Amino acid sequence: MTIAYDGTDFAGFQIQPGERSVQETLEDAITCVTGEASRVEGAGRTDSGVHARGQVISFRTSSKLNPSTLGRALDASLPDDVTVVDVREAPAGFHARFSARGRAYRYTIWNERERPLFDRKYVYHWRAWLDDAAMDAAARVLEGQHDFAPFCGTLRGRDRPTDTRRHLFRLHCWRDGRRVVVDAAADSFLPHMVRNLVGTLMHVGTRKIGISDVQAILAGRGRQGAGGTAPARGLCLTGVWYD
Amino acid sequence: MTIAYDGTDFAGFQIQPGERSVQETLEDAITCVTGEASRVEGAGRTDSGVHARGQVISFRTSSKLNPSTLGRALDASLPDDVTVVDVREAPAGFHARFSARGRAYRYTIWNERERPLFDRKYVYHWRAWLDDAAMDAAARVLEGQHDFAPFCGTLRGRDRPTDTRRHLFRLHCWRDGRRVVVDAAADSFLPHMVRNLVGTLMHVGTRKIGISDVQAILAGRGRQGAGGTAPARGLCLTGVWYD
Repeated sequence: MTIAYDGTDFAGFQIQPGERSVQETLEDAITCVTGEASRVEGAGRTDSGVHARGQVISFRTSSKLNPSTLGRALDASLPDDVTVVDVREAPAGFHARFSARGRAYRYTIWNERERPLFDRKYVYHWRAWLDDAAMDAAARVLEGQHDFAPFCGTLRGRDRPTDTRRHLFRLHCWRDGRRVVVDAAADSFLPHMVRNLVGTLMHVGTRKIGISDVQAILAGRGRQGAGGTAPARGLCLTGVWYD
Repeated sequence: MTIAYDGTDFAGFQIQPGERSVQETLEDAITCVTGEASRVEGAGRTDSGVHARGQVISFRTSSKLNPSTLGRALDASLPDDVTVVDVREAPAGFHARFSARGRAYRYTIWNERERPLFDRKYVYHWRAWLDDAAMDAAARVLEGQHDFAPFCGTLRGRDRPTDTRRHLFRLHCWRDGRRVVVDAAADSFLPHMVRNLVGTLMHVGTRKIGISDVQAILAGRGRQGAGGTAPARGLCLTGVWYD
């Protein structure tokens, strides 16, 4: 199932005790429609405040409803900040997360002195002009297969990835009027990786660092110049692909 | 001062005891910046849930700050759902409401089977296809100087207008992809007038009534066919003009 959600009022995709999660909201809707308890698996475990236009989830059901009827029934059972985009029957063994070959994210910066109003929950407001051409040049340096450990958020226990090598297929940055957009696609992303990449690109955009600094950060030297983690609200999971 | 706001979390423009209003929010910010208590007057007294991109307000101040500095200071003192767009010193006797020569509103219908997600607070969701060409033809019948009493909301006491004649300069309807947009401009609008006009146009769009029924409603006959009051969230005050 492809779904979209406004991450503002969720503590993230993954179930957490006492918190409102996308996963639990979906599982509750499935139980409501099918009468069965189902475990939902998501392709991207988005953080609190991160949005999705093209998240993919999978679950098992013995429901006899055809996929589009099931989708409509689920959509009607979901709150107004989660919606069903598409439903398909998957081949045996399909798993939204483990079968995924790539994920795409978009980060949107509102680069204008005036505050964003209607978009304020979906963009990061940055008043000073960003050099989007320099950001794009730096982005291209980061594309390819690398050890992205310098861009991985610190995590405890079982969530810490053992292998931090990833294939970043695409990292592009451009200006669209008052917005500066960063598009990232990779086989998979480390925790906070997109937001840390954006934080570094913004240091390039404000001319605090240059391309050689970005190369040094990627090589594991000079993490102090890397910039912070850009806020969650500017980030959106736009798509996931499969074989 | 031209301001914009997201009406979702306001009880409307006008001060009401115990409620969060745009007017009181502005007056508090002005007091915070200038140290003076000022009465704010707004060109359009928008209802609860109605948005604005181009509301105009006026107030008196003895502040020595120049207009743009005052605007920035006020903007910094306002919550994230109200923002200052432009500030100018007005001629003596200027009153945002009484000096206004016209107001423009836009109503947006999300006409698609899928629910709106990121726009859900700014559009009215209508699943069944709307005949936007028929709606536009009916809209043109309503343009001009008429007694718009059939499109006036029921009001008590001092808020009830004594003269219900208005000059509707423009009422256009068109499709923009999955949106059906209604643009209305008039010297001034009666309470609920835009939302009642849209309710009637939607009855035309769903082919419940035709142009002759709209003419009858405008003539004060057949109010029962007029359709309801379209929800506040689809409505936005887009601009106000002055001599």
